[in-house]
Amino acid sequence: MNFKDIDLVQEPNSKSSLRLWIRLLKSSRIIENKLRDKLRREFSTTMPRFDVMAALFRFEKGLKMNELSKLLMVSNGNVTGIVDRLVKDGLIVRMSVAGDRRAFEVRLTKKGHQEFSHQAQQHEAWVDEMLASFCEKDSEELLQKLDGLISALSDPSLEVKK
Amino acid sequence: MNFKDIDLVQEPNSKSSLRLWIRLLKSSRIIENKLRDKLRREFSTTMPRFDVMAALFRFEKGLKMNELSKLLMVSNGNVTGIVDRLVKDGLIVRMSVAGDRRAFEVRLTKKGHQEFSHQAQQHEAWVDEMLASFCEKDSEELLQKLDGLISALSDPSLEVKK
Repeated sequence: MNFKDIDLVQEPNSKSSLRLWIRLLKSSRIIENKLRDKLRREFSTTMPRFDVMAALFRFEKGLKMNELSKLLMVSNGNVTGIVDRLVKDGLIVRMSVAGDRRAFEVRLTKKGHQEFSHQAQQHEAWVDEMLASFCEKDSEELLQKLDGLISALSDPSLEVKK
Repeated sequence: MNFKDIDLVQEPNSKSSLRLWIRLLKSSRIIENKLRDKLRREFSTTMPRFDVMAALFRFEKGLKMNELSKLLMVSNGNVTGIVDRLVKDGLIVRMSVAGDRRAFEVRLTKKGHQEFSHQAQQHEAWVDEMLASFCEKDSEELLQKLDGLISALSDPSLEVKK
């Protein structure tokens, strides 16, 4: 039996929304697992580390912890451990926030910026390679459908004001 | 800034495969997070527990540990801890494998089957509700595109013979 035929909880007559969710989860897990493997082998890093650095690469002036966890859609607790290790490795730095003595922001160091630039380049090449047999037209159409789905799912409570 | 506008590592001109992957990851994370919350609140359970039980619900004669981890696309180590706790809770049971003294299979107990049936029903209702504003036609088209993507990504080494 091949993975293509396996649908975890799917029953033959289950509704299309469940079938859709299972396909979405499966395709994203296949890619995520491949990327996770590559990140570990090539850069001895993990997906959550990569994600934190990616967010800080994009928001180069820095982010507060709650902004980071909202952006990455993971809990504050999960982000804290990753941030601690990235600080220890000299890849990101904590900064105090003017007017709020209890809060701090984190941003990439120069070393972090350089390291992430290199990793992001490779990451993009891996994704290109993985999706190479998926044609441009299909890719564009799928992208548009996913945008529609994300809009349908979007939750105003997840806003990050920055 | 709204989540819809945030694309982790995306640069405006990055290639469509990276954009596609980021959309895929984002939509799947939004749904996964909502389901994770609901599983915790309603059933005091976790997504990995739910996934293991879902796989055993589907393969009711039982699965070996390596088959389970292949199906769920997670490492053997991760599955072991979840299986141990499900056995302790009386929801699944270990069985020896004829002709292989070192191997064992796991399957749902009657209690596990009942509990999962109930959870799966609710899970399906949650997914329906989440995707309610995404029309049937779009849903069907997205499903077909994702099937195409999964085929393009499929890896023969991931086969589970059963």
